[in-house]
Amino acid sequence: MADKPRRPRAETPKGFRDYFGAEVTERKAMLDRIAGVYHRYGFDPLETSAVETVEALGKFLPDVDRPNEGVFAWQDEDADWLALRYDLTAPLARVAAQYRNDLPSPYRRYAMGPVWRNEKPGPGRFRQFYQCDADTVGSGSVAADAEICAMLADCLEEVGIPRGDYLVKVNNRKVLNGVMEVAGLAGADKHDERGIVLRAIDKIDRLGPEGVRALLGEGRKDESGDFTKGAGLSAEQAEVVMGFTTAKRDTGAETVARLRNLVGGSVVGAEGVAELEGIAALLEAQGYGPDRIVLDPGVVRGLGYYTGPVYEAELTFEILDEKGRKRQFGSVAGGGRYDGLVKRFTGQDVPATGVSIGVDRLLAALRAKGRVEGAAAGPVVVTVMDRDRMADYLSMVGELRRAGVRAEVYLGNPKNFGNQLKYADKRGSPVAVIQGGNEAEKGVVILKDLILGAKIAESATLEEWKDRPAQVEVPRGELVAAVKRMLGQ
Amino acid sequence: MADKPRRPRAETPKGFRDYFGAEVTERKAMLDRIAGVYHRYGFDPLETSAVETVEALGKFLPDVDRPNEGVFAWQDEDADWLALRYDLTAPLARVAAQYRNDLPSPYRRYAMGPVWRNEKPGPGRFRQFYQCDADTVGSGSVAADAEICAMLADCLEEVGIPRGDYLVKVNNRKVLNGVMEVAGLAGADKHDERGIVLRAIDKIDRLGPEGVRALLGEGRKDESGDFTKGAGLSAEQAEVVMGFTTAKRDTGAETVARLRNLVGGSVVGAEGVAELEGIAALLEAQGYGPDRIVLDPGVVRGLGYYTGPVYEAELTFEILDEKGRKRQFGSVAGGGRYDGLVKRFTGQDVPATGVSIGVDRLLAALRAKGRVEGAAAGPVVVTVMDRDRMADYLSMVGELRRAGVRAEVYLGNPKNFGNQLKYADKRGSPVAVIQGGNEAEKGVVILKDLILGAKIAESATLEEWKDRPAQVEVPRGELVAAVKRMLGQ
Repeated sequence: MADKPRRPRAETPKGFRDYFGAEVTERKAMLDRIAGVYHRYGFDPLETSAVETVEALGKFLPDVDRPNEGVFAWQDEDADWLALRYDLTAPLARVAAQYRNDLPSPYRRYAMGPVWRNEKPGPGRFRQFYQCDADTVGSGSVAADAEICAMLADCLEEVGIPRGDYLVKVNNRKVLNGVMEVAGLAGADKHDERGIVLRAIDKIDRLGPEGVRALLGEGRKDESGDFTKGAGLSAEQAEVVMGFTTAKRDTGAETVARLRNLVGGSVVGAEGVAELEGIAALLEAQGYGPDRIVLDPGVVRGLGYYTGPVYEAELTFEILDEKGRKRQFGSVAGGGRYDGLVKRFTGQDVPATGVSIGVDRLLAALRAKGRVEGAAAGPVVVTVMDRDRMADYLSMVGELRRAGVRAEVYLGNPKNFGNQLKYADKRGSPVAVIQGGNEAEKGVVILKDLILGAKIAESATLEEWKDRPAQVEVPRGELVAAVKRMLGQ
Repeated sequence: MADKPRRPRAETPKGFRDYFGAEVTERKAMLDRIAGVYHRYGFDPLETSAVETVEALGKFLPDVDRPNEGVFAWQDEDADWLALRYDLTAPLARVAAQYRNDLPSPYRRYAMGPVWRNEKPGPGRFRQFYQCDADTVGSGSVAADAEICAMLADCLEEVGIPRGDYLVKVNNRKVLNGVMEVAGLAGADKHDERGIVLRAIDKIDRLGPEGVRALLGEGRKDESGDFTKGAGLSAEQAEVVMGFTTAKRDTGAETVARLRNLVGGSVVGAEGVAELEGIAALLEAQGYGPDRIVLDPGVVRGLGYYTGPVYEAELTFEILDEKGRKRQFGSVAGGGRYDGLVKRFTGQDVPATGVSIGVDRLLAALRAKGRVEGAAAGPVVVTVMDRDRMADYLSMVGELRRAGVRAEVYLGNPKNFGNQLKYADKRGSPVAVIQGGNEAEKGVVILKDLILGAKIAESATLEEWKDRPAQVEVPRGELVAAVKRMLGQ
């Protein structure tokens, strides 16, 4: 006998997932709110395709010390390499260069959509996830950076994170570069060391000061025994760097004074401090005080391409992790100034600054706080008692829908009525409509309040509910009005 | 001297494009409206990832006679082949099989998002485009097909295609199969012939009856001289098939009678006719008359996987094509019943039916009729007369934004004031706000009505407009109120 061909496996590819129902609508509601803020700030939407040339994307992936990092790429018919975008910044840089003669300058754009990373998947880490970015291309002014920070704060409040539950932290790479200069790490031959220092500081929340100090020196062995090579700094050099990470003071002015002290005679460092001072002044003038936006030298952002101000939004409330332990929720958005990305294409300096909101993390935070919106009520289900009267049942759903009530007729095999009620339950249906032959003759329908019914079944004695019937009979002509009453509409 | 590395090209990959501003918001507004209808009908959203295994996708691409057809595919680290989805139906079939124990049955779902085709790009044909689908999985009832047709009509009206400007045409593959039986084309050895017949009928709008007749016979040479091989039918066989394509009569009942005649003793053909009759009766009972939904045997849909009812929405108004010639706009949506797609995975019969709306074509139609919504007004632009007072200008935009007015400060180099007004023009800005040193001292701002200004510049004599100044001076405290007045808010 010939082998039967094997059936295909019904599986999502490894590291990918499907989103159902409320998962989709809740994210959409959040994105719509953020888009509303971006729009009010004058940003225009841009939607690039998922596919870019590898050449245009360049190599700017974050987390360069993680294994299996990379993109999903393939060769097209002309042997050019194409890839799925790994973020929304690289496509923006390409667009800014490609359409530089047509776009307004400065160009404020927002973009939202999935990005793809060919990385090892893990719990809560998927290979496709959403980003939601806003960037200003063509402005070197710190007003552009300040605006992004203010907009980020507004976005968080707009989606339901109240003031006090978040902080936008601002720092400047130039200050760090100044500190590196003071520590004797400025030379071209110190490129690798600077990279290790940057990534070490970026991990201060997770590793603590001692962990960072180890990475600045010889290196660090983690809990699993894996050793990460350090930057090889002397104790004095490490001290300078650590001084930077702990330079935060109670007020912005004090932090600025401390940083000015730390960067000493470094020109780039002094420039960075002045920029921070400018951003703080503009934000203060608009009423964005330290309850919302603070200077914090502990923030450096891992990405190599940042050239000036960097910022990060952190949620400050505690949640319970998978193991039931309390922990800070942490970062949900970040960004900064990247003046070199468009220059890659054009050779000309084009300053740019922007932010990316981690949509899925932010949504998880809102869920943890019970503050999501967008979950839709299930439909009213019109059951089928008599297969031959399908047209009657369809008329009922038609009337309900025209009145704005979400409704559907049961389309499965109607033989077993219990299955129809089980279906209504699975759909989260608030009301079931029933009309058998007797009811049809009498010109009535029966409405079953499934939410009340569930409450009765779950908690109360019959006595308690007897004057609130979970089931009523109403004239056929009053179907829509009675259903709306039951739904509280 | 060493060669400098070549700069990357700032180009979208061939066959892909970028969407800017109103192109994005107009599409989103349309998708939101369609999602509203789908939701009201009880359909739940599903968002699968862009990436599927090639195994799960299967080979169900339409247009099998077009060259370079295919998917964008690559091998992952385990040597499994992955690909970008080419439609939203194949992922649904995978989901229906993968989660068959958890999903409600019947499962009504909608999905909207980009799909990718590795095909030769052409004018208006891109390798990434949007689809917007609704399907019911797990119901074999013709009520499910009728519901999809009614919903499709509702969607078209909801996005702005009035009754009379569209027609949903319904047919049934089983009727065609019955006709094939009568024509002696039922055998397993006639598979290729049946395919050619199917694709020939699908082209009747474009080729006319004579073109189709040629393809049913020996074949057809097109205008460019290319020859397409025909099905090799005899004149009698071709006559039977042609009789089917022209079976449409003035009323549904007459069309059904004619089809019943044509399928003769074929069991499957009679089943198809009965299904069509059932769909027509259900639609009629709900008031979807032939001004909206008609039986039309000319519709067969090219896809090989359809097993029963098929439907297509056509826009019936004329537009001017690229060459200024009048033509019918044509098809914007289509679908049908495909009872075999889930069975691929599970081996069990799972009936399913659904529709896909061609979002980009529908949007083009709405644009041609001037009926799009979603284009956003440009922002109020606060100009920068005095670089040192950036905080003041930011306060102005802050106040405007808090009042719900889209506004921004000019973030480019403020030196040349003319450039700022050019920028405001490029942004489609309705109002420019100006405050130089004199105005600041006097505590006023100047508002320039750019829309009125443009009208004056373009059409009218100064005389005509002199009592409607395009520029007013208002106290700083009245900025928001005065701008809102100017915007008519």
